[in-house]
Amino acid sequence: MLIVMKPHAGPAEVEAVVEKIRALGLTPHAIPGAQRVAIGITGNKGAVDPGPFAAMPGVADCIRVSQPFKLVSREVKEEDTVIDVGGVRLGGPALVVMAGPCSVESKDQILEAAHGVKRLGATFLRGGAFKPRTSPYEFQGLGEEGLKLLSLAREQTGLKVVTEVMDADDLSMCAEYADVLQVGARNMQNFSLLKKLGASGKPILLKRGPAATLREFLMAAEYLVAHGNYRVALCERGIRTFETMTRNTLDLNAVPVLKALSHLPVVVDPSHGIGLRRHVPAMARAGIAAGADAILVEVHPRPEAALSDGQQSLSLGEFGELMGQVRIIAGALGRPLA
Amino acid sequence: MLIVMKPHAGPAEVEAVVEKIRALGLTPHAIPGAQRVAIGITGNKGAVDPGPFAAMPGVADCIRVSQPFKLVSREVKEEDTVIDVGGVRLGGPALVVMAGPCSVESKDQILEAAHGVKRLGATFLRGGAFKPRTSPYEFQGLGEEGLKLLSLAREQTGLKVVTEVMDADDLSMCAEYADVLQVGARNMQNFSLLKKLGASGKPILLKRGPAATLREFLMAAEYLVAHGNYRVALCERGIRTFETMTRNTLDLNAVPVLKALSHLPVVVDPSHGIGLRRHVPAMARAGIAAGADAILVEVHPRPEAALSDGQQSLSLGEFGELMGQVRIIAGALGRPLA
Amino acid sequence: MLIVMKPHAGPAEVEAVVEKIRALGLTPHAIPGAQRVAIGITGNKGAVDPGPFAAMPGVADCIRVSQPFKLVSREVKEEDTVIDVGGVRLGGPALVVMAGPCSVESKDQILEAAHGVKRLGATFLRGGAFKPRTSPYEFQGLGEEGLKLLSLAREQTGLKVVTEVMDADDLSMCAEYADVLQVGARNMQNFSLLKKLGASGKPILLKRGPAATLREFLMAAEYLVAHGNYRVALCERGIRTFETMTRNTLDLNAVPVLKALSHLPVVVDPSHGIGLRRHVPAMARAGIAAGADAILVEVHPRPEAALSDGQQSLSLGEFGELMGQVRIIAGALGRPLA
Amino acid sequence: MLIVMKPHAGPAEVEAVVEKIRALGLTPHAIPGAQRVAIGITGNKGAVDPGPFAAMPGVADCIRVSQPFKLVSREVKEEDTVIDVGGVRLGGPALVVMAGPCSVESKDQILEAAHGVKRLGATFLRGGAFKPRTSPYEFQGLGEEGLKLLSLAREQTGLKVVTEVMDADDLSMCAEYADVLQVGARNMQNFSLLKKLGASGKPILLKRGPAATLREFLMAAEYLVAHGNYRVALCERGIRTFETMTRNTLDLNAVPVLKALSHLPVVVDPSHGIGLRRHVPAMARAGIAAGADAILVEVHPRPEAALSDGQQSLSLGEFGELMGQVRIIAGALGRPLA
Repeated sequence: MLIVMKPHAGPAEVEAVVEKIRALGLTPHAIPGAQRVAIGITGNKGAVDPGPFAAMPGVADCIRVSQPFKLVSREVKEEDTVIDVGGVRLGGPALVVMAGPCSVESKDQILEAAHGVKRLGATFLRGGAFKPRTSPYEFQGLGEEGLKLLSLAREQTGLKVVTEVMDADDLSMCAEYADVLQVGARNMQNFSLLKKLGASGKPILLKRGPAATLREFLMAAEYLVAHGNYRVALCERGIRTFETMTRNTLDLNAVPVLKALSHLPVVVDPSHGIGLRRHVPAMARAGIAAGADAILVEVHPRPEAALSDGQQSLSLGEFGELMGQVRIIAGALGRPLA
Repeated sequence: MLIVMKPHAGPAEVEAVVEKIRALGLTPHAIPGAQRVAIGITGNKGAVDPGPFAAMPGVADCIRVSQPFKLVSREVKEEDTVIDVGGVRLGGPALVVMAGPCSVESKDQILEAAHGVKRLGATFLRGGAFKPRTSPYEFQGLGEEGLKLLSLAREQTGLKVVTEVMDADDLSMCAEYADVLQVGARNMQNFSLLKKLGASGKPILLKRGPAATLREFLMAAEYLVAHGNYRVALCERGIRTFETMTRNTLDLNAVPVLKALSHLPVVVDPSHGIGLRRHVPAMARAGIAAGADAILVEVHPRPEAALSDGQQSLSLGEFGELMGQVRIIAGALGRPLA
Repeated sequence: MLIVMKPHAGPAEVEAVVEKIRALGLTPHAIPGAQRVAIGITGNKGAVDPGPFAAMPGVADCIRVSQPFKLVSREVKEEDTVIDVGGVRLGGPALVVMAGPCSVESKDQILEAAHGVKRLGATFLRGGAFKPRTSPYEFQGLGEEGLKLLSLAREQTGLKVVTEVMDADDLSMCAEYADVLQVGARNMQNFSLLKKLGASGKPILLKRGPAATLREFLMAAEYLVAHGNYRVALCERGIRTFETMTRNTLDLNAVPVLKALSHLPVVVDPSHGIGLRRHVPAMARAGIAAGADAILVEVHPRPEAALSDGQQSLSLGEFGELMGQVRIIAGALGRPLA
Repeated sequence: MLIVMKPHAGPAEVEAVVEKIRALGLTPHAIPGAQRVAIGITGNKGAVDPGPFAAMPGVADCIRVSQPFKLVSREVKEEDTVIDVGGVRLGGPALVVMAGPCSVESKDQILEAAHGVKRLGATFLRGGAFKPRTSPYEFQGLGEEGLKLLSLAREQTGLKVVTEVMDADDLSMCAEYADVLQVGARNMQNFSLLKKLGASGKPILLKRGPAATLREFLMAAEYLVAHGNYRVALCERGIRTFETMTRNTLDLNAVPVLKALSHLPVVVDPSHGIGLRRHVPAMARAGIAAGADAILVEVHPRPEAALSDGQQSLSLGEFGELMGQVRIIAGALGRPLA
């Protein structure tokens, strides 16, 4: 933390800040400049809260110097975190492919999707049983029935299952049927849910909020880890920008930045990211080239009949073509498929 | 909904879309242009889901024509909703002032704040017992102890109490101690929480998410109303923009637009909105001039000692000055104070 | 400038930064923390360029401490700048009203508009002769013919004329016919144009770019002042946000922040700001309440026949009603009309 | 264009809109819905201006159905535009690499950079002689002296030269020394400059504005083409988002969307895009995987001594490593290097 005083702040105002720093058990370092005084603070563990200083007379600005996240950072743990999900390793040298429909809609649909994506090379099945929808009048998911169908698909195919948990009340039920629990983008800062998921011990796929900075994203992951759960994967799924031609804007800058700052695995979701079926393969290729540990792709046996997100779902034929490209790009980068 | 076909879409592709519309029980209206065909849809109640059409061959775009919100709209209910909270009427001719600290910190602090803002003209006391913080290492609120202190302040002053509920598990406890339950900005699209609050019947202060469009904000309110609760106030509290000199950007455009589209009361929070104490009065004045039904202001007996948000809290002296300005602006607009 | 070193930066890396600072004639202040070293820099005039440091080994971050603008800041000139335009004073105690059509379309149109707004209380006439349009196929303005019509309107009414200059080649021509030259939002960072306008000595109305931060806005004004022109007014005209129901989002937070940081007058344009005729009055009122020195309002004798921006232009009748409200709000704040 | 009437618009209001459409020589198609009437418009060439309709009584909304760009679109010209620059073909099967320093600083610097990037596989040399800087106090470029040095580097290496033109007054001088003229991001909507560059006939590298939508970007290109110049390349160079850890956010979604909508070549600039040297290679790889026709990379012989943008410039050694990766990714996609 650096406290910057106003140009005309008097010695008494500077002294009051210095005293306050000392009162907090920290060490002040006054830097007298030609125009103004700045005061560095050391001796803190974790970030210093700017609150008490910002309101003091003569203070112009409080500038954060250290990052506020700790346990998720490479400064605390240098080597990559690898999450082992029943033998499939996420975050290691091999690229992981997760695929499946937006929502579980019926037994036929989820089984056809599961067998299809398994045959084409995926190792994870995605599918929502509880769906966050902007409108209360839209399809809200099959609930527990959907979880049971995902579990059935897992039995038949051996795919690992990832599904969203929207409500802490459903946590134990979801944990029973799924291998990885997803936190949706809109719940990224639902801190109550994060605390409970942190305590659950289950592997978590944390989706980035559509307007979250990378610092906020890492702080949400810090909530999970600080409550005891190190098995967290970070998923970039598109941010909100001014662009209206695409559903979201997949932010691939997040991939190298997150990999540099944190030891956690990074997953890219090109389907929500760009939101247009014809452009999903280009963004999947780019995500892998940027260094993602996994891709998460929406695939539906009949996209034109999907109850949600049909416009961004690949058919099985399109997914097969994409897998051909995935193998080529991953191979060029020296990564096998998990 | 208007389905726009690609320039070279053939008659069979157009016909397939027309058939699909009919299969959904709706009426298609084909408009053959020089370059492309567009197909209007009528006969729907509520918004048509673009999903099934977007994935069909030959379809270029699905354009929403109607707004997706219904119960919160003036088209459904033309007259203003007035929420009566124990005799204080929010949404009527009188301007309501809500004030108090960001967090409840101690008995002395909350009682001093409550008596102070009461004396200066506020009718609502705000204060958080459960605090959503971006960092797991920051002060998380006093919990039930905080609720009890708010309740005590209410007994002593007669102020109505508004406080945030972060977790559905705390809903009944919060409802017992508070008059109005607040949904925080980060929970605006926590649909599980919205459904339960909708069913609670308690007056709700719904804060706009920092990156939410007005349509999304109204759809979140629609969740509350569709689950049975018409006593909802919409609170603009600043959106995220590129500006870094202020904490948020208070969006006063929201005030006339929301008042025109919806019958619900509109509250403005200049404290979170701009986030800098010295500029809170200007934004409070502007919010009233734009047509807000209430303002929500952070006031702390000793801002420099606040455990959260000290940089945006007014002292009681500053709040007193602000109230003088509030009376002048409200008076000029013909609005008494509630 | 504060240089923050990486946690594991070695003494040699720290020393190299210290040496570089000395080599630039500045003074380094090393602050050794528990986890990392930070190095403050003093002795600079104006902002230190982070470039040379950012690329050095061991450097984690370069944090700007001072604002980069100087001549436009209150730190350099404390008292308000008042721009006298032929006797009308912009930036003083009196509120200035500027009104007129988006584009000059014909002699009848501009004269009817000018006489109308004059009668209702405006002291400035706005109108574009050169129009920046996103499409090359849209009306581009009447050019010099438009300037002559503005000049004629000025002769007949005594109104001062403000008009946009898009191209340095037209500068002397525009300067001949107009009293104040406007820099459009899209040209806010057209530095070549700013330098030439700075040298012109004419009063300038500088519009904020739709995605510009306030720092960038003030730096654009700094270009004008640094090239010799202190007669600069800052105009907030709406920023781009995620909202699609309004054309732009008028950012009234800019008003108190700019007034605090700079001595230059601040103008608010509610017409472009919200872009919807029915909501212009609410935003004009709010702009005045926030502390604007002037408002700039689009008025057209027949908005439904306007060649540009008809959806945001007030009719003369609507402008008359607005002026009634303006007088009430300005009066409540103790400001007469200029 | 689709005109949506308000729910309670009367027959006379609908009829007035219908008449206005006919008066413009276009064909109205009324679609009577249960709640409201919508009126489609056909018979137009290019986009219909919403202005005249938006201000009419009873009109709720004017919805654009067609894209406003024409000459740059694939609907008008289906095959890829290939720009031949002295034998190097941009937009064809081969991937083009453009590299060099941000600014031309000295003869030694530019010659060392040029020979270095040539040896490592680039075919274009980039370098600025006129620099747009946010501060008037920062290095503004060497001007004509810089152009002469670029020309000298071209003679010695055979590299093609791309450089920015900031001011129409410098156009003929820049055109004399350079092969491709760059329009900087901040000038993307400097329509005066675009018109003159359109008339120049020189190949243009048009950079996307940091807050421009893809539609606006294509409309800026439309200005160039509509004024006679089809030799235009579109350059994605990072957009502004809420992220502060990176300089900009490289938007790779733009690549497949622009390639689908337009026949013009697409260039990706990972250096400005992410703005951090260590992450440039990841974004360059991702840009190629997304389908870019060229990459534009900042390379400086001594980044730590650069007068501008040192933090994002690669050294020649780093550029050599990147070229190894570029060859692998381009090869995997079946693209040779130009």
